[in-house]
Amino acid sequence: MKIGLIGLGRMGGNIARRLMKAGHEVVAWDRDAAAVEKLTADGAQGASGIADMATKLDSPAIWWVMLPAGGPTEDTIQQICADAKAGDIVIDGGNSFYKDDIRRAKELREKGIEYVDVGTSGGVWGLDRGYCMMIGGSEETVRYLDPIFDTLAPGTGDIVRTPGRVAEKADPRAEKGYIHAGPAGAGHFVKMIHNGIEYGLMQAYAEGFDILKSKNSDKLPEDERFDLNLTDIAEVWRRGSVISSWLLDLTASALAKDEMLQQFSGHVADSGEGQWTIDAAMEEKVPANVLTASLFARYRSRVEHTFGDQVLSAMRFGFGGHTEIPQ
Amino acid sequence: MKIGLIGLGRMGGNIARRLMKAGHEVVAWDRDAAAVEKLTADGAQGASGIADMATKLDSPAIWWVMLPAGGPTEDTIQQICADAKAGDIVIDGGNSFYKDDIRRAKELREKGIEYVDVGTSGGVWGLDRGYCMMIGGSEETVRYLDPIFDTLAPGTGDIVRTPGRVAEKADPRAEKGYIHAGPAGAGHFVKMIHNGIEYGLMQAYAEGFDILKSKNSDKLPEDERFDLNLTDIAEVWRRGSVISSWLLDLTASALAKDEMLQQFSGHVADSGEGQWTIDAAMEEKVPANVLTASLFARYRSRVEHTFGDQVLSAMRFGFGGHTEIPQ
Amino acid sequence: MKIGLIGLGRMGGNIARRLMKAGHEVVAWDRDAAAVEKLTADGAQGASGIADMATKLDSPAIWWVMLPAGGPTEDTIQQICADAKAGDIVIDGGNSFYKDDIRRAKELREKGIEYVDVGTSGGVWGLDRGYCMMIGGSEETVRYLDPIFDTLAPGTGDIVRTPGRVAEKADPRAEKGYIHAGPAGAGHFVKMIHNGIEYGLMQAYAEGFDILKSKNSDKLPEDERFDLNLTDIAEVWRRGSVISSWLLDLTASALAKDEMLQQFSGHVADSGEGQWTIDAAMEEKVPANVLTASLFARYRSRVEHTFGDQVLSAMRFGFGGHTEIPQ
Amino acid sequence: MKIGLIGLGRMGGNIARRLMKAGHEVVAWDRDAAAVEKLTADGAQGASGIADMATKLDSPAIWWVMLPAGGPTEDTIQQICADAKAGDIVIDGGNSFYKDDIRRAKELREKGIEYVDVGTSGGVWGLDRGYCMMIGGSEETVRYLDPIFDTLAPGTGDIVRTPGRVAEKADPRAEKGYIHAGPAGAGHFVKMIHNGIEYGLMQAYAEGFDILKSKNSDKLPEDERFDLNLTDIAEVWRRGSVISSWLLDLTASALAKDEMLQQFSGHVADSGEGQWTIDAAMEEKVPANVLTASLFARYRSRVEHTFGDQVLSAMRFGFGGHTEIPQ
Repeated sequence: MKIGLIGLGRMGGNIARRLMKAGHEVVAWDRDAAAVEKLTADGAQGASGIADMATKLDSPAIWWVMLPAGGPTEDTIQQICADAKAGDIVIDGGNSFYKDDIRRAKELREKGIEYVDVGTSGGVWGLDRGYCMMIGGSEETVRYLDPIFDTLAPGTGDIVRTPGRVAEKADPRAEKGYIHAGPAGAGHFVKMIHNGIEYGLMQAYAEGFDILKSKNSDKLPEDERFDLNLTDIAEVWRRGSVISSWLLDLTASALAKDEMLQQFSGHVADSGEGQWTIDAAMEEKVPANVLTASLFARYRSRVEHTFGDQVLSAMRFGFGGHTEIPQ
Repeated sequence: MKIGLIGLGRMGGNIARRLMKAGHEVVAWDRDAAAVEKLTADGAQGASGIADMATKLDSPAIWWVMLPAGGPTEDTIQQICADAKAGDIVIDGGNSFYKDDIRRAKELREKGIEYVDVGTSGGVWGLDRGYCMMIGGSEETVRYLDPIFDTLAPGTGDIVRTPGRVAEKADPRAEKGYIHAGPAGAGHFVKMIHNGIEYGLMQAYAEGFDILKSKNSDKLPEDERFDLNLTDIAEVWRRGSVISSWLLDLTASALAKDEMLQQFSGHVADSGEGQWTIDAAMEEKVPANVLTASLFARYRSRVEHTFGDQVLSAMRFGFGGHTEIPQ
Repeated sequence: MKIGLIGLGRMGGNIARRLMKAGHEVVAWDRDAAAVEKLTADGAQGASGIADMATKLDSPAIWWVMLPAGGPTEDTIQQICADAKAGDIVIDGGNSFYKDDIRRAKELREKGIEYVDVGTSGGVWGLDRGYCMMIGGSEETVRYLDPIFDTLAPGTGDIVRTPGRVAEKADPRAEKGYIHAGPAGAGHFVKMIHNGIEYGLMQAYAEGFDILKSKNSDKLPEDERFDLNLTDIAEVWRRGSVISSWLLDLTASALAKDEMLQQFSGHVADSGEGQWTIDAAMEEKVPANVLTASLFARYRSRVEHTFGDQVLSAMRFGFGGHTEIPQ
Repeated sequence: MKIGLIGLGRMGGNIARRLMKAGHEVVAWDRDAAAVEKLTADGAQGASGIADMATKLDSPAIWWVMLPAGGPTEDTIQQICADAKAGDIVIDGGNSFYKDDIRRAKELREKGIEYVDVGTSGGVWGLDRGYCMMIGGSEETVRYLDPIFDTLAPGTGDIVRTPGRVAEKADPRAEKGYIHAGPAGAGHFVKMIHNGIEYGLMQAYAEGFDILKSKNSDKLPEDERFDLNLTDIAEVWRRGSVISSWLLDLTASALAKDEMLQQFSGHVADSGEGQWTIDAAMEEKVPANVLTASLFARYRSRVEHTFGDQVLSAMRFGFGGHTEIPQ
């Protein structure tokens, strides 16, 4: 198929490459002309803007937007609408808030344009491993786009079939690594929860390794200390343990390179999905202590002290005359 | 009554003073000779050590130990045992772990010595306000010591009687501000939970004021900011609101002196009780998310970054090529 | 002053009564005719609807809406707008979301109508104790309404002045029990945080009493049990302890009536403020583990089991063949 | 090698079988005679008790104890000591508390007996997949036992080498699936943290799937609902997503068999390791909100209501006259 790709960053560029490798045609545009040039060298057809792209796509045109959520995605989709024709398909492959998808799908449908949201997991590894995709949109449109998703997904590969799965009764897409999750918004909703879980998993490992490392610390009395090798511990857990996972593989690799992780000061960013997951939990009245604590640990990692800490110190001074402990 | 007081710090000294003001006699000792001298000037009889104190006390001797929990308290009680006679009473008024009380009471009983644990709340304000006391020990011994506890407690004062309380059926001690909670250990157990709750209350206020203050922050878009007066907010909440409390009174006072709390950097200490409260919760299989999060916020306040944060950054770099956000 | 009161429930009715007791005139309306009658008997002028009320109020008319947040409040304010004249003042005394206030104030200003949001704490006790109020709106309008707020507030009473407070430099309103927090929305924002803190304080006490009660439980080995008197513990903490508060007073009263609290099954509701507080924390990137855990404990209290629990059991069966423990 | 195996449950029996399959000899005993018979049929030499086993083992005798932590393990090791000779090796392969290991190793060393603790992960799958083992003990003894651990471990298999790992500089054991973590106690310490992390990972998935499922719930307004297929979501996340893991594989399998998980009521047990992990965190002053919340979610899953919930309801009734919401 022929697809217009807007946004040629780490994700967008590799998605284009994986598509072209499988024989799809890509018309590419990015605000950064160098990115367009680079992809043209890899076989894409360059475009000078959205209007230009419109002239180079087939009908129905397929527009894949791969930009940061919020302003950049919103603005671009509005621009596409100006040039798109009824029957065209706009795909948001970024990390948009699913309620924005629902709104946009409604707006675009009024113009006869189909809207599809694709939550994409796989990071920098996707070019080789393939992308795990969670898709929202009409059944018909998703079916039309199947050749594209099929290409981008990892495929069944050598991952063993889930015991108990009755493959003939189930949608075969899931085993290839993508699903049609529901109407517009459902794709990004599932991806949002995916990221919420990701925060929780990461924080569980983080706390565990923190307790391991602190067991080596000379702040403990000498007879309570161990001298644990974190690198070997991460390695051994990859092999036959209950907590083996891809995130653990990455941790093992980081520790193997530098057990002290000195390259990382520990200011941990969060994108919107973690917060939106908590919003969803609250809308549904579902307790989510772990996912929330994981998000808050990231907020806390980015400030030296909170005003709340100062309030605590002030109260302690107030009732007990306690002064602060030295750093 | 005549009472031997060991440990003349902030708490011990004031306890002695409140006792003497009511006509009790105090024999006082502290490793710090200046503290002894100061209290002697206020009317106490000085002692040069525990053996000397033994000669100056009546029979049965009453020893009140007011020292930091752990080593200092433990060692002192062992020393007292060397000089004490059957029938004597040893009171631990500090913040000992209640299981240590249970063990000590057993050890002392073998020598005929009575052991009483007194959890004491009131901080630097106790001299004037009186001390809220939670007491463990035998009924007989606690009854014998009632005149002392009666003096130290705040008394009914002008605090309104609890609606629904049937005073004639209940132990009158509670309304005076002290209780006999049960056998040895029960006093410190109740005090421990008191402090656990205290951590939770403090953290609730701390988080609330943090959210208020951050609403003024120039990190927010200008049209999302307020210009809230934290000092007035704390003040107004003292008056008729559901969250009025003594801790809020202290917060209001701290904010009135400096709304920025610049005197406090926010390294918040924790004594043992918070941790022991969580231990108790786990032994009883009681979920205690708030009390635990309050304790952990204090741990977190005392380090700049955790190794766990670094692990998170390392994973994010591993799967997404994300580099850390600038401070 | 003359004031139109719409919504004569527990809060609205008592607000009207407290106003009339001080000589203000009240025109009252409620969907429930019996409520109007009852208040008319207490001295109010009844109205048969909003249009009727418009004819009975002075100019500028003051409308106080005391209805559940969301639909009821929104609809009523829209109706008032149809009948209100430029210069009139609409007060929302309920628990509206502060962003709704900001929007409404803007909408009403276009019609020349002033909008004031009043976060009101005090519950069923306000009639006698007075109401603690946090107010958003223009300085001019709040000043105009001062006589009303002055009446409703508790007044300085016998609450001691906060040490460190320089009364002559500060807004005297705070010591009377109300504040002008800022422009429209600021009142409900502060009240929202107040309730968020309230959730945290309540949960801290709840967990503490749970650990106390479970220490008596026959699920513990006999030699690890105490026989703690929760009623006396709550009572003694009211007297000189660091954790004394109005919420503790209420707890002491509930326990005094029935230490087992058998009247309460423990399905705990939450109104919007707890959730909005977490939303605000997330918008500001402030960690708020305690306030969040308090909210989630309420969600959890209202379901017998979560699907999450079932997922855990399923995983445990999957890796260890563990079957569930009997209830 | 020849090894005496005590405790032939799910884990012990399979460990024996995996050893025998590789040519090791096993002398087996269990209180349950049927279990001994069954293993004898599979090639083991049966023993009628510990004393009998002592006569059937070589010198030095190797005793592998595979029993529940606490009493059963403790008693059995004491009995072995009565029959063991200097130079013998006692292995605790269960889930003992690591401080018990440290104490026992010291006690046994006084008798010239070596003590080795082996934290074993792998559950019911270990017979085929092999066991991931974390081992504490003297370097010499662990080296002597290498042939046994080598047999039980999964081996390198087809798991890809960790990028960045310099295999020639590292202990080759880790890539085979076992490590010598340090002196006695270190093995169970690392296993304890492993289980603590496991709780956190599981709870992260549990909360995520709960939010997904509740998004389908008819408690939500119809236009806010999706109709998400949890089975396909779990399946697709196994394939190329950031959160793929063995625990997710198990979840996918459970959902494939019954998406409602009706077989599981959600009473989730916890063994000691989760609690001990929090103890360790507190001893080291490491914040561990996620691991703790995961443990507490299990406590909460096993009771219908907490007394804490009742306290909340009682307070709400006290200040607001709120009655409980209907179930």
